[in-house]
This record gives sequence, structure tokens and C-alpha cells, in this order.
Amino acid sequence: MGTAMLQEGRSALDAACEMVCMLEDSPLTNAGFGSNLNDNGDVECDAGIMLSSKEGKNTRFGGVSSLASIKNPVLVAKEIILYQDEPRLLGRTPPLILVGEGASCFAKKRGLKLVQNKTLKSERAIKKYKKYKERLEISKKAVLAGLKITIQPNPSQDTVGVICIDKNGDIASAASSGGIALKLPGRIGQVPVYGCGCWAQHSKSAGIAVSTSGCGEQLIQTTLAKTLGQTILDHGDPAFHLKELMCNQFIHSQMLSDDSYDRMGGVLVAYYNEDSVDFNMAFTTDSMVVGFMSTNYEKATVRVSRNTSSIAPPTNGNDSLQSTRLTMEGFIVKLIN
Amino acid sequence: MGTAMLQEGRSALDAACEMVCMLEDSPLTNAGFGSNLNDNGDVECDAGIMLSSKEGKNTRFGGVSSLASIKNPVLVAKEIILYQDEPRLLGRTPPLILVGEGASCFAKKRGLKLVQNKTLKSERAIKKYKKYKERLEISKKAVLAGLKITIQPNPSQDTVGVICIDKNGDIASAASSGGIALKLPGRIGQVPVYGCGCWAQHSKSAGIAVSTSGCGEQLIQTTLAKTLGQTILDHGDPAFHLKELMCNQFIHSQMLSDDSYDRMGGVLVAYYNEDSVDFNMAFTTDSMVVGFMSTNYEKATVRVSRNTSSIAPPTNGNDSLQSTRLTMEGFIVKLIN
Repeated sequence: MGTAMLQEGRSALDAACEMVCMLEDSPLTNAGFGSNLNDNGDVECDAGIMLSSKEGKNTRFGGVSSLASIKNPVLVAKEIILYQDEPRLLGRTPPLILVGEGASCFAKKRGLKLVQNKTLKSERAIKKYKKYKERLEISKKAVLAGLKITIQPNPSQDTVGVICIDKNGDIASAASSGGIALKLPGRIGQVPVYGCGCWAQHSKSAGIAVSTSGCGEQLIQTTLAKTLGQTILDHGDPAFHLKELMCNQFIHSQMLSDDSYDRMGGVLVAYYNEDSVDFNMAFTTDSMVVGFMSTNYEKATVRVSRNTSSIAPPTNGNDSLQSTRLTMEGFIVKLIN
Repeated sequence: MGTAMLQEGRSALDAACEMVCMLEDSPLTNAGFGSNLNDNGDVECDAGIMLSSKEGKNTRFGGVSSLASIKNPVLVAKEIILYQDEPRLLGRTPPLILVGEGASCFAKKRGLKLVQNKTLKSERAIKKYKKYKERLEISKKAVLAGLKITIQPNPSQDTVGVICIDKNGDIASAASSGGIALKLPGRIGQVPVYGCGCWAQHSKSAGIAVSTSGCGEQLIQTTLAKTLGQTILDHGDPAFHLKELMCNQFIHSQMLSDDSYDRMGGVLVAYYNEDSVDFNMAFTTDSMVVGFMSTNYEKATVRVSRNTSSIAPPTNGNDSLQSTRLTMEGFIVKLIN
């Protein structure tokens, strides 16, 4: 559907938002309807978009967090971007990021409908919430009784992300997430944080877009989307730099000092150069799903990849991350001009 | 007072928070009590702290935003950092950033008292709010009547920031802000955004702390605190790199694409090496106030600096920023070990 919009000459921003809305509406994704429930049993959504126009003169970002009463959080992020381009009285700086009640009021003023939080909860999310809450209660009792609990891996964190390049060569990268299951209310993940959930930028000869998924806190502490985007745009060779940066700036980042956690990150990088897009994905999570197509394709290619790689090579002598494995895949898509 | 605490051997984190609380409690600063009022006439505060232990193994960040019922927002950011070090059940990732109602509930659970929003409003802030609101109404009417309005500079944005280095060599950099006057409710400035409002990091031989003030959106889009902190820690020579980065990565940053705005930024960089701290400040705002002292000083040195410099040299051929001027000052403080 996004491809059809791009074929009709619609903007990357419109197409990316439309695609994210579809993913938000699906009960299978952790975004919009069907999001993970927070510790209070409520849905609280994050979304973000970054937009770069081909000539590189116009870069825009909009992020929203802790939205409890909006069906499609990505549309609020889009409204923030549109608002930035409107005339302003008295030179008032327009916002980049809006959160909580204030963000909902902004959305309402911009014509979006507020909904009741319960309409965003799926059967599946409610079941998962009950299961995790029960586990947590049992763990608390076990700890009080002096028993030792084996740490479970973090429950699903799958942010959804969409990257679109339109006929003008403009790029939009958008992401949406319901956050970690049982997160503290008010917690912000990587998605609405500038440079962490998505990135879009142009140089004179190339363009880049990045979308990230995984443990939001680790993706924030490594400013991963911006780090990847700027380095690859400056130096080219996306596959080489993606691997190098994922090892040195993510898995073995000095900013991630707590070694008791695995590094949980998945990234999709689209490097756009003349007439083709070089897609590369890298992930340390168990799996990653990606679909892509060009307007000259009849249907999308969908890849479900499992992390079966060997251990990421430690480059700083830190051996405690033995269990973090990095898998990489790449695809080239030809564009029609 | 902060210095007395450091003399007693208290941690950089404790001393920095205590100092920020004093600044938050003052009606003269735009932080905590006396903050700028938002478009609804309410106080909504942001705060952030970053902490780096000398051996560089432990870097922590806590940020809060849109707090409407907490007297000292910095204490909530501190609680986030303390929470990160507590044992966790089932491997639940602790948050970096909390916002809005969720952040207030977290603060209450951690023993902080909730207050009514009206107790955070100073006479001065209410007066300012009324004046700006009136100006805005007049401007709206003037625009409707087809008149042209001269854009006024942004009303005061002064974030408060504190940097402390303790006896262990640990560094804390903390910031607190009430945000722009008449901001949209729910707007996040640079302070709670990782890498934008404050930075603290160690290498083997040196430590660095950065605190920023100015237009939050511009400071976010340039990830200014992190950009300055990491580059200066990697390359040394703080005065040289600070000037170069303020010109190329802030004033002439490609990410700040809207040329109708002046770049509004002020930064304080403390580069700590062996037995002395090299303080450098750089600002494009009209003025900047800084006070500093070492535990071997009897009283603090306070500098109120005006921006009287010439135009910042354009390095990318962009002549539209003629009015952005950069002033720099530097000081060396000897430490007692």
C-alpha cells in the first residue's frame, strides 16, 4: 500500500505514516493497538519520524511518548513535523518532542480523535500482562523466601519501523512502539528520542535512513541510529561500517557499563546512492523480520531471519558479553527514476 | 555548600543534586519554583543528571520531563539513577527517562512528596506569563488585520547546570529547566534527553563534564553535550575543540536547517586531567553566568559574561547566520588531592 502511494507521487512522509498506521492497527505488533501493557495495565505508546529532503536543506524530526489515548501515535509525530513548517507568532520555537497529556491535547487540537485506553488493549496483550504479573509476584515471594531466581530474557520489545524513499528522493524513517511489557508508567524508549529510534539524512550524493529496535535504554545510551547514519553517510560502504559500529559502538560500547545484560539491538539501514538502495540489517536479538519492495516490484520480499551467528568479536577485552551474537544480512534494491 | 559537601567526602552525585536543588528553589532561575509557565499557565519541569565513575566502568543517566507536581525535579532524576543500581526481578530493564504522570508516581513511590502545581508558580513567572500572553493575543489580531509583526527574540530559556568532581574523581553533571515560556504542554527540552543537556565521561587519563543551556530544540538536534564531551575526551585541547565544534557542529550544523532562527546555545565544559580542571565556556546567547570553586578556595569566582564577540566564522558558506556571535572564556582550577 505504501508502494502504491509512492507510485502515485505521494511523499515519503505520507507513505511511511500510512504504513506505520497499518502496523499499529495490527494486534500482532507491539505498537498502537495491541501494545505491551505497562506496570499499571495500560497502553502507553511512543512514536517518532525523521524526514530528510533530497537537497539536504530540510531535516525534520517529531517524537511523542506516553500517549495513552491515541489510536495511531505516528500521526501525532507527523503533526509535530507539519506544525514545525507552519508560520509562528513571535518567533516561538516549535517542539520536537511532546509527551503525556500535553501530547494528547496537541493531537486533539490538530484534529486527531482521542480514544479510551481500553480500546487499545488486545486480548493477547492482556493475557501476556497477566502472565508476566503472575511471574513477577512469584519471583518477589521467592526472593523474600531466600530463593534464587534465574533471570529471564526481556519479554518482546519489537518496535515497528518503516523507511520510505519517494520520487523526489526524499526519505522518511518512522518508528512506533508500545515499549517493554510491564514498563514503569511514563518510561521513554528509543523511538521518540532524537538520533536513537530513527534517522534520515542526505549528503550531496547519497541519502541514508536507519530504523532501530531492541532494548530502548541501550539504543538511547549509544545514540545508535544517529551514530550509524552519520558514519555511513560520511564514509559509504554500509555493510562494512554497520558491522564495525554494531561491534564497537553498540555491543562493546563504553556507555553500556552494566555487563549483566546482553545487548539487544536490531537495525535496518537503507543507504541510497544514485539508482539503487543498499539495505543492510544487523541484529543481536533472536530474530528480525524485514519486508521491502521498490515501485517496480510486483510484491514485497519478506525475510524472517534468526540469529544463528557466532559470538560478536570483543574488541575491548570485555569477555563478559559472550552471549551477544551479531547476525547481518544485506539486499540491493534497484530504483526506477 | 556543594563544595562543603565535597570536602566532607560526599559524592559528586549528592553534591550536584544539592546545588541544583538550591537553584531550583530560587525564584530567579527558570527551574523548579519560579519556572516559566507553559501555554496553559502551568509549571512543567525537566531535569537530568549524568554520572561517570573515575575508572569509567559506571556511567549512569537519569532524565525526567513534564513534571507538574514535584518541588525539586532533579531529585527524581537522581532517584532514576539510584533505581538503576538496585537489584531487579526477572531482568527488567530499569528506565533512563520518565515523563509526566508516570514520573510523578515513580517519585512518590521513591518517597518524594507531591505538591500542588500552584505552589511552583512565582509572582515573577505569573507576571511574565500574562505579559507574553497579551503580546501573543495582540500579534494574532495584528496578523488577522494583515499587519506585519517583527519577530521578538525567544524569551528567557536559562537552564541551570551544575558540574561536580568529588574526592574519588567521579563526575556528576546535572541540569534543570522550566523550559521556554508559553511552551506547548508536554514539550521536552534538551535537559532530559540523553547526550543533549549534560554529559559526563572518563577515559583512562582524563574526565569530562558538559552542561548546556539555550534553545532546547537546537541542542537536541545537534546532540551537543555528547558531541562536545566525546570529541574533547578523545582529542584533549578543550578550548580549541570547543570553538571548532561550536562553529561547525552547532552554529553551522547541517541538522539545523531552518535559517530563520539564530542559534541559541551556551555550554560549560569541565575537562579534568591529573591535578587541574580546565573550564571553558562558549555561548551564542546574550550572556552567560558561571560560578566555580575548588575545595581549596575560600569562595567561588563568579563571572557574568556578555556576548560582545564578532560574528562566528561561517565555514560552510552559509551567510544567513550573520547575527549568531560566539563568545568564549576559559579558566583553570587547581585541585587538591
